[in-house]
Amino acid sequence: MAQLQAISSTSSINIASYGSKRRIQAVLTSNTGTGISDLTKGVGLRGKLNKVVLAYSGGLDTSVIVPWLRENYGCEVVCFTADVGQGIKELDGLEEKAKASGACQLVVKDIKEEFVREYIFPCLRVGEVYERKYLLGTSMAWSVIAKAIVDVAREVGADAVSHGCTGKGNDQTCLSTKLASILFLQGDILEDPANEPKKDMYMMSVDLEDAPDEPRYVEIGIDSGIPVSLNGKILSPASHLAELNEIGGRHGIGRIDMVENRLVGMKSRGVYETPGGTILFNAVRELESLTLYRETIQVKDSFALRYAELVNAGSWFDPLRESMDAFMEKITETTPGSVTLKLYKGSVSVTGRTSPYSLYRGYLLL
Amino acid sequence: MAQLQAISSTSSINIASYGSKRRIQAVLTSNTGTGISDLTKGVGLRGKLNKVVLAYSGGLDTSVIVPWLRENYGCEVVCFTADVGQGIKELDGLEEKAKASGACQLVVKDIKEEFVREYIFPCLRVGEVYERKYLLGTSMAWSVIAKAIVDVAREVGADAVSHGCTGKGNDQTCLSTKLASILFLQGDILEDPANEPKKDMYMMSVDLEDAPDEPRYVEIGIDSGIPVSLNGKILSPASHLAELNEIGGRHGIGRIDMVENRLVGMKSRGVYETPGGTILFNAVRELESLTLYRETIQVKDSFALRYAELVNAGSWFDPLRESMDAFMEKITETTPGSVTLKLYKGSVSVTGRTSPYSLYRGYLLL
Amino acid sequence: MAQLQAISSTSSINIASYGSKRRIQAVLTSNTGTGISDLTKGVGLRGKLNKVVLAYSGGLDTSVIVPWLRENYGCEVVCFTADVGQGIKELDGLEEKAKASGACQLVVKDIKEEFVREYIFPCLRVGEVYERKYLLGTSMAWSVIAKAIVDVAREVGADAVSHGCTGKGNDQTCLSTKLASILFLQGDILEDPANEPKKDMYMMSVDLEDAPDEPRYVEIGIDSGIPVSLNGKILSPASHLAELNEIGGRHGIGRIDMVENRLVGMKSRGVYETPGGTILFNAVRELESLTLYRETIQVKDSFALRYAELVNAGSWFDPLRESMDAFMEKITETTPGSVTLKLYKGSVSVTGRTSPYSLYRGYLLL
Amino acid sequence: MAQLQAISSTSSINIASYGSKRRIQAVLTSNTGTGISDLTKGVGLRGKLNKVVLAYSGGLDTSVIVPWLRENYGCEVVCFTADVGQGIKELDGLEEKAKASGACQLVVKDIKEEFVREYIFPCLRVGEVYERKYLLGTSMAWSVIAKAIVDVAREVGADAVSHGCTGKGNDQTCLSTKLASILFLQGDILEDPANEPKKDMYMMSVDLEDAPDEPRYVEIGIDSGIPVSLNGKILSPASHLAELNEIGGRHGIGRIDMVENRLVGMKSRGVYETPGGTILFNAVRELESLTLYRETIQVKDSFALRYAELVNAGSWFDPLRESMDAFMEKITETTPGSVTLKLYKGSVSVTGRTSPYSLYRGYLLL
Repeated sequence: MAQLQAISSTSSINIASYGSKRRIQAVLTSNTGTGISDLTKGVGLRGKLNKVVLAYSGGLDTSVIVPWLRENYGCEVVCFTADVGQGIKELDGLEEKAKASGACQLVVKDIKEEFVREYIFPCLRVGEVYERKYLLGTSMAWSVIAKAIVDVAREVGADAVSHGCTGKGNDQTCLSTKLASILFLQGDILEDPANEPKKDMYMMSVDLEDAPDEPRYVEIGIDSGIPVSLNGKILSPASHLAELNEIGGRHGIGRIDMVENRLVGMKSRGVYETPGGTILFNAVRELESLTLYRETIQVKDSFALRYAELVNAGSWFDPLRESMDAFMEKITETTPGSVTLKLYKGSVSVTGRTSPYSLYRGYLLL
Repeated sequence: MAQLQAISSTSSINIASYGSKRRIQAVLTSNTGTGISDLTKGVGLRGKLNKVVLAYSGGLDTSVIVPWLRENYGCEVVCFTADVGQGIKELDGLEEKAKASGACQLVVKDIKEEFVREYIFPCLRVGEVYERKYLLGTSMAWSVIAKAIVDVAREVGADAVSHGCTGKGNDQTCLSTKLASILFLQGDILEDPANEPKKDMYMMSVDLEDAPDEPRYVEIGIDSGIPVSLNGKILSPASHLAELNEIGGRHGIGRIDMVENRLVGMKSRGVYETPGGTILFNAVRELESLTLYRETIQVKDSFALRYAELVNAGSWFDPLRESMDAFMEKITETTPGSVTLKLYKGSVSVTGRTSPYSLYRGYLLL
Repeated sequence: MAQLQAISSTSSINIASYGSKRRIQAVLTSNTGTGISDLTKGVGLRGKLNKVVLAYSGGLDTSVIVPWLRENYGCEVVCFTADVGQGIKELDGLEEKAKASGACQLVVKDIKEEFVREYIFPCLRVGEVYERKYLLGTSMAWSVIAKAIVDVAREVGADAVSHGCTGKGNDQTCLSTKLASILFLQGDILEDPANEPKKDMYMMSVDLEDAPDEPRYVEIGIDSGIPVSLNGKILSPASHLAELNEIGGRHGIGRIDMVENRLVGMKSRGVYETPGGTILFNAVRELESLTLYRETIQVKDSFALRYAELVNAGSWFDPLRESMDAFMEKITETTPGSVTLKLYKGSVSVTGRTSPYSLYRGYLLL
Repeated sequence: MAQLQAISSTSSINIASYGSKRRIQAVLTSNTGTGISDLTKGVGLRGKLNKVVLAYSGGLDTSVIVPWLRENYGCEVVCFTADVGQGIKELDGLEEKAKASGACQLVVKDIKEEFVREYIFPCLRVGEVYERKYLLGTSMAWSVIAKAIVDVAREVGADAVSHGCTGKGNDQTCLSTKLASILFLQGDILEDPANEPKKDMYMMSVDLEDAPDEPRYVEIGIDSGIPVSLNGKILSPASHLAELNEIGGRHGIGRIDMVENRLVGMKSRGVYETPGGTILFNAVRELESLTLYRETIQVKDSFALRYAELVNAGSWFDPLRESMDAFMEKITETTPGSVTLKLYKGSVSVTGRTSPYSLYRGYLLL
């Protein structure tokens, strides 16, 4: 299971094996047409494959790859699009387009719930902090896609998967954004970390000054470290996050302006919006202050640093991450409860916490 | 040097040795007169001492201890008051009062700068987080007092020190507050962590809703991890913190409402105000994001967790803390620079960072 | 579940609650008769209890406690002896003796397998190191006793448990020794850490110089981090450890001479013998070098440091320890295999390792 | 200073800057002549350099590089050989050979003491463990060479440095061996980790069975975590290590047979001999058990894990490593003392420890 993350590395042909039953190759293309032609000259087929599943956006890039794959591998191409809430319009006509490019089939899968439930919320439970800021989602976006495309490959009997990324980073950012409701902004003004981002760069959240003059209170219900309800209403993970993104965005919550480490020694400026994530992060921690002992919190936090290093290194399917989650699952078993937060002009303040397992005023039983 | 912290533990006679030259005892009193009398019956003198330095507030509690010390130890009593900015009025007449109680002398020392420079700012450099919140000062307040009183004992040739704490916690809180400009609030309403604190409990900061509608920008200059200037003006540590406390307080910055761990398994509710500390904490971290590599930050943060555990356990004078500071001093050597922050209705947002050692856009020299 | 460890603390009356159903008190006695009498004067019964289970050795100390408990609590006393392999002779006549002291019943329980399976081997899986040496058992010996006595209390419907420890440490040591086959030696010569232990102090292991001139090879089979077989023969946990104790002892394996930290700032000298534990510790680690990635080992080792701190602090029943074991269980899932070790005059050298999950020479699947 | 380690990476041209004054390039060659010629065709000079310092062994590989460098960069070539104790014979005639290859000069530097003092002993002080075994030296061998060659480049006014490594690993191993007196063995039999190494593979240490029947006692004097004397005689770092290598080797001490992690997911078998390192590692730790508090040891050990990760990643000149050493220097300030160890047939047992700062039996000063 540990090999799959390699699918998102670029510039060479990768072979991925997910699980143990049968091996599915990952064919990674470079979309600079000429370069590819040059490289393949004299070798005829790059290799024989029967059926390849291609991560497909309908854009020019991915459309070009369909014939390239057929030509180089002599294979059928199944296009795959993850429905991450981009709306009916964008999916409209996608099947015809895929087939026009030479694909034999378009498979569309809704993975919103899976992503939030299996990836985002476990990281929230950990209290994972990305470079000291409360930011969910960027590093695990590719993991869920990688898993989904391999699942489709299994279902349609393909022997390889491919994605059309140029490795330039834009596709990945775009994808992450839609998946996690994290908005990543970049632009000329941001190039200098001494400059403040412009107002009109933000898409999910209003400016602090434009937020309502009245605070908004939200009550988050949490079970086993996972958010389960909002203001008393049980919500699915993706709906929960979506609703908080909207509420939080209206109050200017969750804007993050940071200098990140892209590669060893390479810093870059990133501006993000993650209103829902910021609210939930605060809620989970407040509840833990009530239900976990000091030493437990200290150990959990030191594990969280390691967890974050691992996930940010792209090692989601590593047994180490799974083992750390076994720890997190167990330690949060006794942390049900709810937290009330006040949202006001960009700030999140706690106003109440309750839990049947509260250690507050607990008498010492010695 | 490691033994001094014991001076603040209660309910028994402690012997403290600070440094190696000569030993100075710490005599801890319980100020419930009768209890003391009962205890001392039949033993005559508790022990013979020549001169004792008493931490003296001028309040009833400490005034009672002067004769108690003389009676029980047959010693002269030197009263000591730390000038922590309580104003001339409070110090006025203090010497007469002390002498009226039987003291031979009153020594007043201004330790504001020392406290901020030697205790608060090093913790800031570490990025120390107290139970996951940005809170400076509570745990080291006693360390600076302990050190100051022992220094006075040396100067006046005393062979013991004493403080008048009842161990009930109020004196300590009061003291910490004045020292660190941290406000600690407690009251009936706070007893239930499900309740929001009342508006009129706060003393240093306005309510978010009452803060100005215009944001305020502050530029913090930092050298070797330590704040050195504010808006281009060089300030001493204590003045720096004081000015930011005032500015931040006006914008509702730094209110902290938390459930803490007092003793093993004992949770309590605490509400604090630390406007200046919150601003500086953010400034230091933002600068590090520009000047330190990712792995360096990860290691520094994992050390910070340990540092916080140690300091919160009261082990300020432990060689371990000193060794950790040797690490912190070295790692922040190359982090001069400045950070501009926007303060607005309780929120602190970074709007600019610059450093001559910035790793941003640095080309890799391989 | 977290409260039980308190049962082994001394010098005050402790109340233990194990599990949530009903509370069972722990009555801790001081066996210095007069002191007790003085204390109890004027209060009549210390408290009313119906039935108390007493950890009973048959020695004078515990025999004296039976009437003391009856007198002070007006209760029936059930004596409990853990069969930890002390042989039939020692158990012979124990029931009569107990009844002669005033006990209504003697319960004998064999907990050898439980101790090794539930306590010793999980610590082995962690790779727990006690103050940097490979030492199993001391810190968890009291945990298994505590659990066993509470189990008995439940079975016989008692409302309290008691043990006869003087708190002087000898009983505890004696008990630990029998349970874990760890021998703890102390004596005048050891008082100075500059002296070498005398030959005749050791009981389980021969001197290195007296060990056979021929090495002995043992093959340890391991599954999920737990030893399961010895030289191809499946063995129960306690038999496994016992057999290796004998084999290892004959070759001078597992002598440990260390300066330990008893209390904060108190160092003591300890000399231990743990032949079987030393062999197994090496076997488990060698196998992991074959089956775990470098980063996984690094994280596991940093968790092991925390685990050891926790267990040595007596917090076996803490949810934190249980959560750490959830991590350990998961991370060792894929580490079956076997390791061959050569035992020769006190040294353990690895001579072979095999595993179906070996990562050695594994081709990278990218 | 942080960039230098890159000099040992292979397969591309690297630019190294050591210090801030002026930049010195690192020219890395691949010694497969034809490949290079092909690559350079059509580009004439690869770049213009004035003077290059080449790490020079006198072997065929490095001799071929001299003309290659002159041809490709139009530069003078200064050969550099590190005197690491290979004896006069090997250095004999080396200058003539270098000049015959076209070099303008041969510089020979003795770096034995520097290596042990500046690299090996600091790691010893840390208690650095390489993949859980006590192994000194491998990972920092390249660091000292890198530093030495850049120093020479400065002295002779060169603008680039180069080494003739093929990147196949043999040169590096050979070099490390001589530098650190660590012997690294590899061969067919070792390919399967299930096989025991053959007797005749070892070069520094005798077989356990062939070691003397009489034990040998050594007394190591330590100051600030660094070994300073042997049996009461003050020795320089390199002499100290050399003498212990000989003594230890005669008693079969320090053989290490391990499965290592070479690259991510690549395991390899390594057999090492490090008699002196093993003895000193034990001595330093035994002394710390006497002079450091339990919590201090716990923190130091968790730092040591991080330190080892860093050093093994080749980041010796990283400010993070330097900062960690600032911690280590401070924490070991109060650990002078001496430790007596018994060496017998491959095992090292402590028989005595003394220190003026011993915490043993120290009375608590509260």
